Amino acid sequence: MAQEELKEVRVFAPASVANVACGYDVLGFAIEAPGDEIVARHSPEPGLRIVEITGDNGKLPTEVSENTAGVAAQDLLRHLGMLDRGVELEIHKKMPFGSGLGSSAASAVAGAYAVNKLIGEPLIKKQLLPFAMAGESSADGAWHADNVGPCLLGGIVFIRSNQELDIAQLPVPENLWAAVVHPDIEILTKVAREILPREVPLDNVTQQVGNLGGLLCGLIQEDYELISRSIHDVIAEPRRQKLIPEFYRAKRDAMAAGALGFSISGAGPSVFALCEGEETARRVGAEVSRVFSEVPIENQVYVSMVNPHGVHVVA
Amino acid sequence: MAQEELKEVRVFAPASVANVACGYDVLGFAIEAPGDEIVARHSPEPGLRIVEITGDNGKLPTEVSENTAGVAAQDLLRHLGMLDRGVELEIHKKMPFGSGLGSSAASAVAGAYAVNKLIGEPLIKKQLLPFAMAGESSADGAWHADNVGPCLLGGIVFIRSNQELDIAQLPVPENLWAAVVHPDIEILTKVAREILPREVPLDNVTQQVGNLGGLLCGLIQEDYELISRSIHDVIAEPRRQKLIPEFYRAKRDAMAAGALGFSISGAGPSVFALCEGEETARRVGAEVSRVFSEVPIENQVYVSMVNPHGVHVVA
Repeated sequence: MAQEELKEVRVFAPASVANVACGYDVLGFAIEAPGDEIVARHSPEPGLRIVEITGDNGKLPTEVSENTAGVAAQDLLRHLGMLDRGVELEIHKKMPFGSGLGSSAASAVAGAYAVNKLIGEPLIKKQLLPFAMAGESSADGAWHADNVGPCLLGGIVFIRSNQELDIAQLPVPENLWAAVVHPDIEILTKVAREILPREVPLDNVTQQVGNLGGLLCGLIQEDYELISRSIHDVIAEPRRQKLIPEFYRAKRDAMAAGALGFSISGAGPSVFALCEGEETARRVGAEVSRVFSEVPIENQVYVSMVNPHGVHVVA
Repeated sequence: MAQEELKEVRVFAPASVANVACGYDVLGFAIEAPGDEIVARHSPEPGLRIVEITGDNGKLPTEVSENTAGVAAQDLLRHLGMLDRGVELEIHKKMPFGSGLGSSAASAVAGAYAVNKLIGEPLIKKQLLPFAMAGESSADGAWHADNVGPCLLGGIVFIRSNQELDIAQLPVPENLWAAVVHPDIEILTKVAREILPREVPLDNVTQQVGNLGGLLCGLIQEDYELISRSIHDVIAEPRRQKLIPEFYRAKRDAMAAGALGFSISGAGPSVFALCEGEETARRVGAEVSRVFSEVPIENQVYVSMVNPHGVHVVA
């Protein structure tokens, strides 16, 4: 139901880990931080405008049609027949670009969600998915819900079909924590994509399908051992790890420190570990950080439970 | 716990549907009939012997080391250090060979299960898996638990790893029925294997992984619509359907009659439909049978709920 309109709304959209090892293009989960903030407010001037962007080192366009948050918000207003509404957006980037943490997805989700809230919430969260997808797609040309889905809805999101936007939220085991480490290196999305195989040997398909199924069963049944046995990627990780210095050392030390599994977040360079319990996750995060620091590569560590809420209003 | 030994035991091992569309090599379910029966009894003469085989038109070897049931039973006795026990087996084949219904798996499972029962049940059902696998593997050289698993345990069985024999039983939605139709044509396993692609385009891998995950979620959540959206095989079916006359007509008519999904059982030539409710399953079975009969190809129809028990003792 539509609600009373607000004067201004500030929302936070979290980073997310896509692929999750065996779930290439079909699985992702949200974390608590980092994330982007967007403020939306009414304006007497008709149309949507981006009036301020911070935290982007001047890299992001303020032109609505060229900005992921702008495209998502604009698409939503167009759908609602409200293109003449006066709306201002402030975009506060609080996470690195090209980190493999769903930065453009977070901005796109925040843009659509903030404007929907501002105008009295005509749509429910899940209905915002295609608009956020359009926003993210405007940045990189891809059409994958594995960042947008969890950033919007929270939790662990499984995507049966990206084309049909057929997605499901999975239950999150109570004590499942993530340690995410972002090494300060740049991987071009184009390179991360081109390094993938175009064809996959049938044996590897069976392994990947088996592991993805095992991970889903493990998550649903809260079976941490099954989760651990299933977090293996035989398709993307063996290729993309080459782009991340000391990947296998970081993985070895993460596993030795008690991680359930370890792999690349999205297209990288960020890496993630899933862990049972906060203490293990903090220890694993510290170990992985140490490996990168010794290279030396500057890095940031984010330890949190899987974020069950996704994008939300902040005070 | 080991129980008192019986003089003689007769067991029934059911047919099973492997692959289940999107679950190539990782998913299978048991049906109520057809299936094989094996009688095991003590003998004063040391060692395992096959004393009678019926229903095989003389095709099966009575030599223990060349017979799937014999190999499975012998492997079990060897594991238990009981190779000198006198045991006789009667094998009653009650399902067609090379049908895609797990005929050799049924014999292997029945062999291991019958002997284990006869000698006082030293192992639980799940522990018989490697022995039954060895029996089936002796017939076709493959090592896949997608027939042996459901035939042994019943229900819908998911295999994370065939190599590690890491398998899980999935819950079966209450009203899930199967219509299985066996057209009387021969497909050589060798041909059915060679027709498969060695490499799969990455896009198809994502579709297959998405559908397998969707099917698992659908089964666990009893979401028949999600089950229906997920029963698609983009890897084996497009190739193997060429070996089954009128496959796409049968599929079209099955779907028109209300099937949730339709595909090839194992390597074929049998086909199966999953349906919500008995009435739909009977209608779908009749439609598919009619398509084959019009070719004309003789065929048998088996309609049942998913068999929750697997192999069991019969009176």
